[in-house]
Amino acid sequence: MRASRFLFATLRENPSDAEIISHQLMLRAGMIRKLASGLYTWLPLGKRVLNKVETIIKEEMDRSGALEVFMPVAQPASLWQESGRFVQYGPELLRFKDRHQNDFVLGPTHEEVITDFVRNELKSYKQLPINMYQVQTKFRDEIRPRFGVMRSREFIMKDAYSFHINQASLQETYQVMYDTYSRIFTRLGLDFRAVQADTGSIGGSGSHEFHVLASSGEDAVVFSSESDYAANVEKAEALLVGERAEPTQDLKHVETPTQDTIAKVSEFLDCSADQSVKALLVQGIAQEDGNTPVVALFVRGDHELNTIKAENHPLVAAPLTFATEAQLKQYDLPAGFIGPQGLVEKGITVIVDRSASILSDFVAGANKTDQHAVGVNWERDAKISEVYDLRNVIEGDLSPDGKGTLHIKRGIEVGHIFQLGNKYSEALKCTVLGEEGRPVTLEMGCYGIGVTRVVAAAIEQNFDDKGIIWPTALAPFEVAIVPMNAHKSPRTVEAAEALYLELQALGYDVLLDDRNERPGVKFSDLELVGIPHRIVIGEKGLDAGTFEYKQRTDHESRNLSKDELLTVLQK
Amino acid sequence: MRASRFLFATLRENPSDAEIISHQLMLRAGMIRKLASGLYTWLPLGKRVLNKVETIIKEEMDRSGALEVFMPVAQPASLWQESGRFVQYGPELLRFKDRHQNDFVLGPTHEEVITDFVRNELKSYKQLPINMYQVQTKFRDEIRPRFGVMRSREFIMKDAYSFHINQASLQETYQVMYDTYSRIFTRLGLDFRAVQADTGSIGGSGSHEFHVLASSGEDAVVFSSESDYAANVEKAEALLVGERAEPTQDLKHVETPTQDTIAKVSEFLDCSADQSVKALLVQGIAQEDGNTPVVALFVRGDHELNTIKAENHPLVAAPLTFATEAQLKQYDLPAGFIGPQGLVEKGITVIVDRSASILSDFVAGANKTDQHAVGVNWERDAKISEVYDLRNVIEGDLSPDGKGTLHIKRGIEVGHIFQLGNKYSEALKCTVLGEEGRPVTLEMGCYGIGVTRVVAAAIEQNFDDKGIIWPTALAPFEVAIVPMNAHKSPRTVEAAEALYLELQALGYDVLLDDRNERPGVKFSDLELVGIPHRIVIGEKGLDAGTFEYKQRTDHESRNLSKDELLTVLQK
Repeated sequence: MRASRFLFATLRENPSDAEIISHQLMLRAGMIRKLASGLYTWLPLGKRVLNKVETIIKEEMDRSGALEVFMPVAQPASLWQESGRFVQYGPELLRFKDRHQNDFVLGPTHEEVITDFVRNELKSYKQLPINMYQVQTKFRDEIRPRFGVMRSREFIMKDAYSFHINQASLQETYQVMYDTYSRIFTRLGLDFRAVQADTGSIGGSGSHEFHVLASSGEDAVVFSSESDYAANVEKAEALLVGERAEPTQDLKHVETPTQDTIAKVSEFLDCSADQSVKALLVQGIAQEDGNTPVVALFVRGDHELNTIKAENHPLVAAPLTFATEAQLKQYDLPAGFIGPQGLVEKGITVIVDRSASILSDFVAGANKTDQHAVGVNWERDAKISEVYDLRNVIEGDLSPDGKGTLHIKRGIEVGHIFQLGNKYSEALKCTVLGEEGRPVTLEMGCYGIGVTRVVAAAIEQNFDDKGIIWPTALAPFEVAIVPMNAHKSPRTVEAAEALYLELQALGYDVLLDDRNERPGVKFSDLELVGIPHRIVIGEKGLDAGTFEYKQRTDHESRNLSKDELLTVLQK
Repeated sequence: MRASRFLFATLRENPSDAEIISHQLMLRAGMIRKLASGLYTWLPLGKRVLNKVETIIKEEMDRSGALEVFMPVAQPASLWQESGRFVQYGPELLRFKDRHQNDFVLGPTHEEVITDFVRNELKSYKQLPINMYQVQTKFRDEIRPRFGVMRSREFIMKDAYSFHINQASLQETYQVMYDTYSRIFTRLGLDFRAVQADTGSIGGSGSHEFHVLASSGEDAVVFSSESDYAANVEKAEALLVGERAEPTQDLKHVETPTQDTIAKVSEFLDCSADQSVKALLVQGIAQEDGNTPVVALFVRGDHELNTIKAENHPLVAAPLTFATEAQLKQYDLPAGFIGPQGLVEKGITVIVDRSASILSDFVAGANKTDQHAVGVNWERDAKISEVYDLRNVIEGDLSPDGKGTLHIKRGIEVGHIFQLGNKYSEALKCTVLGEEGRPVTLEMGCYGIGVTRVVAAAIEQNFDDKGIIWPTALAPFEVAIVPMNAHKSPRTVEAAEALYLELQALGYDVLLDDRNERPGVKFSDLELVGIPHRIVIGEKGLDAGTFEYKQRTDHESRNLSKDELLTVLQK
């Protein structure tokens, strides 16, 4: 590509409305422009990167044996009513009526459509397993779209859906997808981790997220120092380590006015936060009589409640909802000063995190306004209904597989593979005739990659103060050639043209920067948009038979002979 | 691809709801399935064809220097209000509100979005010309979607938009696009014609449609027998040939009760239809005083009014609308028996088609119920306000360039290139600084190809009673290999596998039909889905060192040596 015929739309200033680095750099490099909240146009530079991501994904999906299909963006609401998600999905599901007043949705995902297709089309177990994928525009009406294409309303996704006669077949394809995703992200040149993820209310036996590691990542992912164990923080189990000591103190109430945080209480009482418990009173599952009981959750003062784990407890309502003031009043419990003492006696289920359950002589609320209790001991002072894994793991925790300790990194979720089981096939009655001639409800898997998000995540992982540093596989151009003093030196123009054609013929994606701009402008543009290799052609070099070469991350350029140059590019 | 791992979804029966051959064959071959009215899922077989179309289009667009972008499907309504099309476009424009009650449309086209982008992004004439394209899902809420993907609501389009500092630059890019489209349809292997098209209310100086010729085509396209002249029937000019003879008859009124068609009147009066005129009374342009005058259009009895030509007349309202009964009553004109006599005197503008204007002694309505006039002569009996080209050309008319006569064929419009001029750039105030430092409103061109429609059109042009006959460039697979008696003959399986790998290595898109089906089922499937080359491998051939080869359109197969086979495939 000749730069003079390309659309360079670089910006010198940081756009004021871009909060994260990838959003800033995508705007500054001229990859995207905002059309409306959460809607972005991809400019030629951005589209080149997007195409490279898409091509790698498609090649690997094809290689895995998945078959490419293409489903409509507009979907009849009736299918979503059938699956129950028309209501469940909430306002992120964009609904509309067509000119005949029929209800439709703009697809945020395609489980319903593909399940409907399979139930109509496939008749026999002999046609299974099948795995179908598409690369397609999705729409999710985010309440507050932000971070550019990282959390936009319209985005491109590769979604795949597999159908199986039994769980063993699903497992097999799931493993193939796991390997395929690993190959995809490896080919994309990204530092990523596959981590175990929670399967939530759908159940199913497995789910992995693929995270691009980046300090700005929204998610915490957890690794063992000595094994392959990796999970997202929602999923990672916190083991019970140690035993509870015998009580040594008596329970005493202490006045703690204005001490309304764990930190303040700890300081005030001169004890460390890990010697206290904090209470979270939440809604339980509604009973048949219409009453909703309150459930009390306790974790150590220095630990964080893991919402997903709490929601997975059979007595706790999902989504997790705090008890109302009226409910607290009913039990005569003062918010901010609640301890476990006497709760079971009041008919409240007390679920205690494993780590909190082995404390002794600890601090807790006194169930009286402006008072805490010290020297509290389980069983003696406070009954436990159940010990349960309720907290987020922290750095240094024992790995759940018993091998090594846990480390935590930040990640950006770019892929997710999921054993759906029969959630959708059951709701939509998707069956085929099994080997014994009877209808069998199919097992399903689904496998997603956020194609547009991958581009942003790659930038979050690879940038410096000059701009983007693309992995070569994603770079909009692999090599840039800059002729110096083009207006005065026909020799450099000629040499640049010749090298341009030669490298193109060798299969490189080359940009010839023939723009009528100062070298400084060109150099900073090329660094901003992140082209991996830069070759400057000047009179001196021509005399010496060398090219001035600089890799994107090099501090200095160096003079290379043609052979050396070709060797460097080949790496 | 191994057929056993592919999704064959062929149907033996013709689907009852498919009216045209491409729709029937796409369903029967298992290329598409209907999700809802006008919404289709592309199955693996169909998606392969779609991908081939898309690849050729993209390659040629890139080669032309156009830059690929990607714009959102959801577009803010405000831009459509700015261009005036939010109202104009009518109910085919699907409107919806997002969760914040903001108005959006599902894009049927992207003139507004790209013009908004250019006005924000480009500053100087130095950045021009620029031509940007995308391949993308569009939505048009057709009142009665039909013919499968030929007229669906959701479809894929390649749309391109070019911006220019002046008309000369637009002309240049327009010519590049004309050549690019010609190359695209040539590479797709289709018999197509580029024809002049009407530019309608937008004006602008040029527009061409690209039609795939097929007897089932919805459109009529017109060619000269002796020159390059080609146009769609809306655009093709009907020349004035001959002169009006002097009157020889007196005007007489004849009772013609129940003679309510031209054919009946002609038969009843024993004159040929080309010796009569028919009247069409339509709405004129509304006046400043709020009144809408009636305009009378006359064409020869055997000719058809050309709606577009009529609408292009400055006194006629668009869209063309018949006069109401009340209006006719006001002028005392009986529907079905209207002639030109005395109309001008009543204040009605009388526009007469060229061919009708040279009649003498002709038949017309008598302006009295159940009566016609014979021996009518222009000027003597009926004043003419204006002679105008109002009719569709017919087979045998003189070519407008004066060279040869016109022939008419049926075509399916698959592409359209259009000089938009400044319709959108003016409405959206899209300017850049010109060479003289002053803002210049840009000239625009737009260039569309119906990607999904191309697939259907290719089938309408290429099929027989056995199924689809793909041009090789579009075929889902180029070559099919069928091992005979696979379950009994390991030799044939082995030979088939070897040939499969060999042809794949040579770059062919090969299907190895390893399904557990009878040869008859395989052969008819392969013919139905239209694979160009079929190679059958059997024991006898292996003994003789030959392959049983049949091209899709051959009646018989023939035995070829390996060398002969490779030569045949290479063609």
